[in-house]
Amino acid sequence: MSHYYRLVVSCPDQVGIVARVSSFIAQQGGSITEASQHSDLETGRFFMRYEILADSLGMSAEALRTSFEPVAAEFDMQWSLVDTQKRRRVVLMVSRESHCLVDLLYRWQAGELDCDIVGVISNHDDMRSLTEWYGIPYHHVPVDPANKQTAFEQVQEQIDAARADCIVLARYMQILPPSLCERYAGRVINIHHSFLPSFAGAKPYHQAYERGVKLIGATCHYVTEELDAGPIIEQDIHRVSHCHTPTDLVRFGRDVEKAVLARGLRWHLEGRVLIHGNKTVVFS
Amino acid sequence: MSHYYRLVVSCPDQVGIVARVSSFIAQQGGSITEASQHSDLETGRFFMRYEILADSLGMSAEALRTSFEPVAAEFDMQWSLVDTQKRRRVVLMVSRESHCLVDLLYRWQAGELDCDIVGVISNHDDMRSLTEWYGIPYHHVPVDPANKQTAFEQVQEQIDAARADCIVLARYMQILPPSLCERYAGRVINIHHSFLPSFAGAKPYHQAYERGVKLIGATCHYVTEELDAGPIIEQDIHRVSHCHTPTDLVRFGRDVEKAVLARGLRWHLEGRVLIHGNKTVVFS
Amino acid sequence: MSHYYRLVVSCPDQVGIVARVSSFIAQQGGSITEASQHSDLETGRFFMRYEILADSLGMSAEALRTSFEPVAAEFDMQWSLVDTQKRRRVVLMVSRESHCLVDLLYRWQAGELDCDIVGVISNHDDMRSLTEWYGIPYHHVPVDPANKQTAFEQVQEQIDAARADCIVLARYMQILPPSLCERYAGRVINIHHSFLPSFAGAKPYHQAYERGVKLIGATCHYVTEELDAGPIIEQDIHRVSHCHTPTDLVRFGRDVEKAVLARGLRWHLEGRVLIHGNKTVVFS
Amino acid sequence: MSHYYRLVVSCPDQVGIVARVSSFIAQQGGSITEASQHSDLETGRFFMRYEILADSLGMSAEALRTSFEPVAAEFDMQWSLVDTQKRRRVVLMVSRESHCLVDLLYRWQAGELDCDIVGVISNHDDMRSLTEWYGIPYHHVPVDPANKQTAFEQVQEQIDAARADCIVLARYMQILPPSLCERYAGRVINIHHSFLPSFAGAKPYHQAYERGVKLIGATCHYVTEELDAGPIIEQDIHRVSHCHTPTDLVRFGRDVEKAVLARGLRWHLEGRVLIHGNKTVVFS
Repeated sequence: MSHYYRLVVSCPDQVGIVARVSSFIAQQGGSITEASQHSDLETGRFFMRYEILADSLGMSAEALRTSFEPVAAEFDMQWSLVDTQKRRRVVLMVSRESHCLVDLLYRWQAGELDCDIVGVISNHDDMRSLTEWYGIPYHHVPVDPANKQTAFEQVQEQIDAARADCIVLARYMQILPPSLCERYAGRVINIHHSFLPSFAGAKPYHQAYERGVKLIGATCHYVTEELDAGPIIEQDIHRVSHCHTPTDLVRFGRDVEKAVLARGLRWHLEGRVLIHGNKTVVFS
Repeated sequence: MSHYYRLVVSCPDQVGIVARVSSFIAQQGGSITEASQHSDLETGRFFMRYEILADSLGMSAEALRTSFEPVAAEFDMQWSLVDTQKRRRVVLMVSRESHCLVDLLYRWQAGELDCDIVGVISNHDDMRSLTEWYGIPYHHVPVDPANKQTAFEQVQEQIDAARADCIVLARYMQILPPSLCERYAGRVINIHHSFLPSFAGAKPYHQAYERGVKLIGATCHYVTEELDAGPIIEQDIHRVSHCHTPTDLVRFGRDVEKAVLARGLRWHLEGRVLIHGNKTVVFS
Repeated sequence: MSHYYRLVVSCPDQVGIVARVSSFIAQQGGSITEASQHSDLETGRFFMRYEILADSLGMSAEALRTSFEPVAAEFDMQWSLVDTQKRRRVVLMVSRESHCLVDLLYRWQAGELDCDIVGVISNHDDMRSLTEWYGIPYHHVPVDPANKQTAFEQVQEQIDAARADCIVLARYMQILPPSLCERYAGRVINIHHSFLPSFAGAKPYHQAYERGVKLIGATCHYVTEELDAGPIIEQDIHRVSHCHTPTDLVRFGRDVEKAVLARGLRWHLEGRVLIHGNKTVVFS
Repeated sequence: MSHYYRLVVSCPDQVGIVARVSSFIAQQGGSITEASQHSDLETGRFFMRYEILADSLGMSAEALRTSFEPVAAEFDMQWSLVDTQKRRRVVLMVSRESHCLVDLLYRWQAGELDCDIVGVISNHDDMRSLTEWYGIPYHHVPVDPANKQTAFEQVQEQIDAARADCIVLARYMQILPPSLCERYAGRVINIHHSFLPSFAGAKPYHQAYERGVKLIGATCHYVTEELDAGPIIEQDIHRVSHCHTPTDLVRFGRDVEKAVLARGLRWHLEGRVLIHGNKTVVFS
């Protein structure tokens, strides 16, 4: 895989941003292999993402960062510049439903997800054997209703010990406490098994069945304190009919959940998802 | 087009219904060209729909109906037997958005909708020229907030004068009063411009934009007294991204609305939609 | 899971088939939980599939078969009546691409595929560990171009020793010899990595890239002697753009292949796929 | 609608193109509202498209063009800079199938297509009334097999008299002679009623039915001398099953054709489609 520096920027929109940034990169000899921009006309905010061939620049990411700082300051940018050789560290959290875990582990091994999966945390012990077959540490942290605070302190310790850049709730089925939502803001990705905002909360497939909808869906979103209400990264649907029982909906839903979570996570890892208030810009 | 008798049945499920009905038809020499059944295991209700080649039977629909009555009584059936040569009479109701009207008139002329469109009712006069180009009577019934009751009495008169079997709210944008919902129960089809139950009520595309969803949709449903809550016939979606403004969502939505309403209406006219509580069985 | 007898029939169409079959079942007290019929008007052939609750009948599948024989003879039926408690035996054949294998093993373990996977045959040894983790025997049968006949004799021995009802080419990448195509006719399912008939043969994603198509696809079909030309069971597609390299197409394609093969195999195992000349009737 | 200058460029890729172009625009005070770039790594060609708010620049498109010329020369660009207030002139060509014509005229009137439709040419007189209802001149140019050359000379005269920028074969069903393909290269858009490269040539829905495919499609492409082989702009599909006759396929296909052609034409008119050999870059 080629080696890139990835520059991701958001700032107030004004004339000359692209000129300034692209000129800066050109002056260093940087070859841009992928470029995306977006101007939000409603809020007047500008977003951009560049992939720059590392070998085309005669400097480290660190050095590039230092020399970019004045440009960033000039335009009041929120920005990051990452070296794609430094892989993101991801922790997966699961409960008893294995489909998302199986799917992510497979994609990771197949090279589809540019990250290191550095641990799996679960409130059950069921997925240990599978996880360890992939050579990944498994942490069983039971969550007892009477004892949630202690459990989530352990979860936090595991996440911090693993130095995780990103936490994926791959059908974790427990609600993260506000303290964790805040601590890892913008870094926790959840898969919700409905087409949000329809059927937020518990048992969405049963809700969908009761309402008699003709399509079910899944939603990948960032976790915020308000349940199932964070910025949406990706959604997809599957057609259903009167023939299908709630069990069928759950089965179809598994396929949608896997696909939507994998796409959302991939885009997040590649720096393609920029949070903008309670929405996202996705340079997919 | 071939000439069929269409038998549509729902009744409490029990052993022997299909045997009894299919034997009855076979005894008359009836050739079944399309057959659909569904057993709802949760409610114990059975649904069926047969298309029988009229020429294969030596009798009129009326005579067939008479001879079927004892079978229907035996199984406590809700049923209908229609002659497809007798076309359904449809009234379209529109406001100022023309896309669904244009689409339905085209499909009707192209022979995709097996009905007579016997009138268009609108609270504005904008669509008169188009409607009359297709040779269809246009009734302008203004709806003044101060004067809704009178307006809907006129609407009712027009529907009754047209002897309409089916009323289509093709983006009518007015809420039918409960009296009309009740009078024409199971015969009024609406297109709602969201993926229900998300974004019921007004301005769904703007709601969708605000929430930052990645798919928008439309829902075709039977009208009941509770707004946007009737049995769903059909739904579909269109993918959107951060690039798209509310105006884009409206534009994409028009295509989804047209497609979903046309499918829903076609299935309704062909007797493929059976209402089951607040849900539908659709033999599409 | 409930216990069913599954009756699948095809025969020349005539008046009275459904009446005769459904009456036969009703006379035995049989409760039909799912019924599908199709009349092909072009060829005059009739197809049907019934699921009958085993407990509603006071007899074994064997006894039911015996008593159904006169009915079958009367209408010149091709038919089968299987007891769903007797699970089908499936052999998977793979090469080096693991995505379909991983997907099918997961679905099988999750109970989505109603069968026993009784062995995996591969021309490479790569998938042994994964296969054996699932407790399934792995047979490495190298295929040397100079020695194909011997290899396929071994393959045949393994299939026969496993008493396989169904063979799935889950990206096997070798062409089965005509003798095996004939021996297992109607029982070998392949996944082809294009939207057939486009891009039959080798390297379809590269062909698709060269042609500049905007959608790629995959096709699940029965294997016949003519390469990639057997009856199609299922197809699906994925949208691509100028941004995507052949590598991206291969990656998207893996997801389509997995989904299409899993659906096709599931339907085959449930007796939902009836071969009709070089086409299929799929009661999905 | 806002007023833009649209700059579309393709050239050999090298470091500094974006910097040079965006700096040029920033120096004039130009506010870029939409920007797209693509580097084809295989061929080393670079593509870009900018929408610039006209009011942010203190000059006409003509003046901007003149001052951009040295930049274009420096990078060996193929380029255009259009003023979106100057609407493209489009001629539609049809035969007897009206669905694409009805759809395009509706979208044009609804403001979805940023162009003037300056004429409809047909080898039949059937669509005259509809076309004239929209206030558009209709030219009936019969095409007699014995007399094709004369007919296409008349077609060319009409196109030239209309000063058409773009010609849309909206189910024209006649093959354009090579002379016209060449004369209007890159400006003639066709809708083919199959998922190319499957089922090129005549009667694709019947070919699809014979092959038993489970999805049918449509393809919008630029016309070249080689039949149905030009650069593909857009494709889409519709699911079909054994239930569907060739007539059903034709009916489903109409909806796909309309949608695909409308999207392709819209993108072409907005300068979003860049031809690259026999493929396209589509900044949709």
